[in-house]
Amino acid sequence: MSKQYYIKSRFWIATEEGTFLGDGKVKLLQSIQDTGSISAAARELEISYRKAWKMIDVMNAQAKAPLVERQSGGKKGGGTIVTSNGLKAIESFTALKKKCQKFMDSEFSKMDF
Amino acid sequence: MSKQYYIKSRFWIATEEGTFLGDGKVKLLQSIQDTGSISAAARELEISYRKAWKMIDVMNAQAKAPLVERQSGGKKGGGTIVTSNGLKAIESFTALKKKCQKFMDSEFSKMDF
Repeated sequence: MSKQYYIKSRFWIATEEGTFLGDGKVKLLQSIQDTGSISAAARELEISYRKAWKMIDVMNAQAKAPLVERQSGGKKGGGTIVTSNGLKAIESFTALKKKCQKFMDSEFSKMDF
Repeated sequence: MSKQYYIKSRFWIATEEGTFLGDGKVKLLQSIQDTGSISAAARELEISYRKAWKMIDVMNAQAKAPLVERQSGGKKGGGTIVTSNGLKAIESFTALKKKCQKFMDSEFSKMDF
């Protein structure tokens, strides 16, 4: 056979209220962490500021503790930070994603389509 | 915490030409196998006959051997059958799906969001 088959996957963590965490939300968290700003993260992800906030609201509402928080005052005059809970979410999701892809690649390599 | 988190996933098998097999295409194969007809399967899946045929063409074009074949003549005056290769595809995909979900549930249960 000349065709090369490969497996692709996507997963997301949900509650009864809907998606809590998926690729898009984790990308947003990572970008807020990198840029320190929701508007910069929204630009990077090519989504509207409004949509970015909506995603954050959905996450925060479903999380045990907020993943993103506004900070006011301080030397930099405030900003948005990813909380330790948010950083843990990025890390856990990314680790799970790697593990799953590895598992699926391995299972898939045993198969013959 | 009161929230119940769970993990959802989707995977699909692709070639450079695009998706070869995913949930939708496997459902279509299964339905053709059950009903013996593409039009009945299309009705069951609430897609157009044209769309069903397009999905089949895409699969067949990427497969080593056709997954679905038209049969002409015979007692029943022809019809559409899922080939042995198609049945194998349904089976392999379904088995992989179960395995992956089990793995992810197990990994996910170790995590704390």
